Amino acid sequence: MKRKAVVILGATGSIGESALKVARDIPERMEIVGLAANSNAEKLAAAANKVRPEALCLVDETKVDILRKALEYKPRIFSGEIGLCEIACLTNADMVLIAIVGTGGLRPALAAIEAGKDLAVASKEILVMAGEIVMREARDNGVHVLPVDSEHNAIFQCLEGKRSTSSAESSKLNERWTLDVSDVRRILLTASGGPFRELASDKFDSITPEQALKHPTWNMGPKITIDSATLFNKGLEMIEAHWLFGVEMKRVEVVIHPQSIVHSMVEFADGSTLAQLSYSDMCFPIQYAVTWPNRVPNTLPPLDFSKLPKLEFFTPRYDDFPALNLARRAGETGGTLPAVMNAANEVAVAAFLDRQASFPRIWEIVEEVMNRHGSVAHPDLDAILQADQWARGEAQRSLKSLKR
Amino acid sequence: MKRKAVVILGATGSIGESALKVARDIPERMEIVGLAANSNAEKLAAAANKVRPEALCLVDETKVDILRKALEYKPRIFSGEIGLCEIACLTNADMVLIAIVGTGGLRPALAAIEAGKDLAVASKEILVMAGEIVMREARDNGVHVLPVDSEHNAIFQCLEGKRSTSSAESSKLNERWTLDVSDVRRILLTASGGPFRELASDKFDSITPEQALKHPTWNMGPKITIDSATLFNKGLEMIEAHWLFGVEMKRVEVVIHPQSIVHSMVEFADGSTLAQLSYSDMCFPIQYAVTWPNRVPNTLPPLDFSKLPKLEFFTPRYDDFPALNLARRAGETGGTLPAVMNAANEVAVAAFLDRQASFPRIWEIVEEVMNRHGSVAHPDLDAILQADQWARGEAQRSLKSLKR
Repeated sequence: MKRKAVVILGATGSIGESALKVARDIPERMEIVGLAANSNAEKLAAAANKVRPEALCLVDETKVDILRKALEYKPRIFSGEIGLCEIACLTNADMVLIAIVGTGGLRPALAAIEAGKDLAVASKEILVMAGEIVMREARDNGVHVLPVDSEHNAIFQCLEGKRSTSSAESSKLNERWTLDVSDVRRILLTASGGPFRELASDKFDSITPEQALKHPTWNMGPKITIDSATLFNKGLEMIEAHWLFGVEMKRVEVVIHPQSIVHSMVEFADGSTLAQLSYSDMCFPIQYAVTWPNRVPNTLPPLDFSKLPKLEFFTPRYDDFPALNLARRAGETGGTLPAVMNAANEVAVAAFLDRQASFPRIWEIVEEVMNRHGSVAHPDLDAILQADQWARGEAQRSLKSLKR
Repeated sequence: MKRKAVVILGATGSIGESALKVARDIPERMEIVGLAANSNAEKLAAAANKVRPEALCLVDETKVDILRKALEYKPRIFSGEIGLCEIACLTNADMVLIAIVGTGGLRPALAAIEAGKDLAVASKEILVMAGEIVMREARDNGVHVLPVDSEHNAIFQCLEGKRSTSSAESSKLNERWTLDVSDVRRILLTASGGPFRELASDKFDSITPEQALKHPTWNMGPKITIDSATLFNKGLEMIEAHWLFGVEMKRVEVVIHPQSIVHSMVEFADGSTLAQLSYSDMCFPIQYAVTWPNRVPNTLPPLDFSKLPKLEFFTPRYDDFPALNLARRAGETGGTLPAVMNAANEVAVAAFLDRQASFPRIWEIVEEVMNRHGSVAHPDLDAILQADQWARGEAQRSLKSLKR
C-alpha cells in the first residue's frame, strides 16, 4: 500500500483540521505535500510549520507577507485564485482534498483532474454545480472522485463490492475504478433532521438564528448548520449522490435518523440494505478516501454497543420541509438549475442569519428564484458560474420585494 | 448472469420451503434440479410435482413407495444416506443447498464439494463440526461455500468488497473467490437475545419449555429456538463465522439486538462498521447465496423506514449465558471440541424439552462434557463423528448423574 501525497485546499477549516489530524494518525499512509487557505495566514503557517509541506497557497494575496514571516522553513508559496489551481497540480501530489466552501473549489478541482490527481471532495458545490463536468472530466482523465461527506462516504463503503476495474482510458498507469450500480434500488441518505425535526410547521415563522444554529449532533459552520435545519443540506447531498454514483434522482431518497450513527445506506435490488455506522467524526470519511481501497488501523474509537443510543428512522416531512422536493426538481432538471438553487439558498441563509428573512422564507426565496430560471442544459463552467451570479441577484430581488 | 441449477437437501424443512419460494420468485435465475428429504414422502412429492426436478432423494427407504405413488412424473429417485451423497453430485447441479438438521449433511456436503458443486450452507453442523475439513476441501476443489444463515449471509454481504479472485487451483474453469479479511477488526454477530434476555439469572431454574419456545422474532424449530434462548445458537454461529471467513475466534463477537433487523455487522480496521439490514425472512439470504455475486429483483418487501422499530444494541450477559464463552473456548481449542459441544448441547436440549433437565442445566451438561473431552487436533471426518457419539453418551451420563 502506497503512502498517499495529499494537497489540502481549505486547510484551516474544520475539514482541513480533521485531514491534518488523519495525517498525524496514519503517517505511513498519508503525507501532506501542500496546504492552501483563504486568508488565515497565521493558522496556515502554524499548520505548515508542523507538517512542512513543500508548497503552500494563500488566496488572499495581501496576507502572503504575514504567512512568509510566520514560517519556520521555506516552502514554495502560491497565492490568489490562480495559486489554488497551481498547488492543485503539484507534481508530487497523488490526491487533492477540496474542502473550500463555496464556488472557489470548482476551478482548482478541474485543474487537479486534468493534472491526473485523484479528488477527495468535501465541498458540496463541486458536484452540485458542476457534477456533470467533474464526473466526465474525471472519467476522461482516468482519475477517481472520492467522497468525503460522511453520507456519501458511507454509501461509497456500502458499494465497495460494486466496483469494477477497467483499463485506464488515459495515460495513467493505474487502473481506474467504476461503480456498477445496476444492483442498486435506492440510495438512502440519512439526515439528523435538524433541531426542528419535530416542530409544528406553524411555529416555523418564529424560529430565530440562535435556535437554528443549535445542531443536535455535528458541530459545523453556520451556513451548513442552517442548511441542516432547512434540509437544504440534504437536498444538496441528493444531487451530489446522483452525480457521484451515477444513480437517477428518483432512486435517491432521504431517511431521518436523529442519532447520526448510520451515515447512510444502500438498498439493493433484492430488498436487502447495507449501512455504514460510526461515531460522527470527519476523520473516518477523510481517512477512508485517502487509504481506499484499503483500510488501515487508527486511533479513532469504534462503536461501543454497550452505550449506543436507540437508533431511530423516520420518513422526512416533505411538505413541511420543501428543500428536499426542490432539490429533487433541481437534480432532475439538471443543467444550471442545481447551481441556481445552491446560490439562491446561500443568499437566503445569509439573510436569515442577518434577520432579514424568516426561516421558512429561505425555502420560498429559493423556490421563487428557481421558478424564474430558464435552465441551460449541459452548461460549461462559465455558464454555471453565470447562473450562480444571476441567482444571487434574483434572490436579493426576492428579499427586497417582500420583507417578512 | 447464469441460471443456477440447485439441489436442495432438506426440501421439506423450513429452509427448504423458503428455497422453493425463492425459486418461484426468481425462476430466470434459479432452477431446482434435485430435492431431498428425510422421511416426509408426501410433502416431498407435492413439492416435486410442482417444480419437476430431475432427481429426488428420500433418506427413509421404507417410504420410497409412498413417494413413487404420489409423483405425477418420473424423476430419478435416490434413497438412504448414500442417496443424499448421490443427489448432491448430480451432473447438472451447480450448487447444493444443505438444509439438513444434525450431522446428516456432513457427508453429502463433502461429496458435493468433491464433485465441484458450490455449497450453500444452512446447517450449522457442517462448519461447527467439520469447518476445517470443509473449507480445506472447498479450497482444494475450487468451489465456494456460501452462507445461508441470516447472520453469516449478512457478514458475507458486508465483506462484498473484500473478495479477491484468483485463478482456480483445480480443474474448474471459473475463478474461485477468496476473502481478504486483513482489514477486518471484528465480526459482530447480532443475536435477538431470546426470551430471557432481561430475566434475572436466579429465575432461570424455573424456566419451562413452553416459555423457552416463545421466540420473539423468528419462527423456527424447537431445537434452534431453545438454542436461541440459551445463546448456544449464537455460540455455534461464532464457530461457523470463524471457519467461513477465516477470522480468529477472538475477533468474533456477539451484539444483542432484539429487533432482528440488523442481521450482523463487520467492524473494520479503521473503526468503521458495515451492517446488513432487512426484515427477518430466510428468502433474503437464500436468494443472495444463489444469485451471488449479483443481486436480482424479487417480490420481498424492502425496509419501510416509516414503520421501523427503534434499533437497540447491547453487550451480552456473558456470565449469565455461559454458551458464548463455552463456544469461544471450543472454537479456540478447535479439533473435536466444537463437535463435542454441539452434540452435548443437542442431548441437553432434548432433555430440557423432555423436562429431564432444567434450563441452566443445559449449559452445565455441555460444560461438563467439554471438560471431560481430550480434543483431537486436525481430526478426520470419522474422528469427528466418533467424538460426536462419545459426547452424546457423556451427556446422557451427566444427565443421569445429577437430575435437577
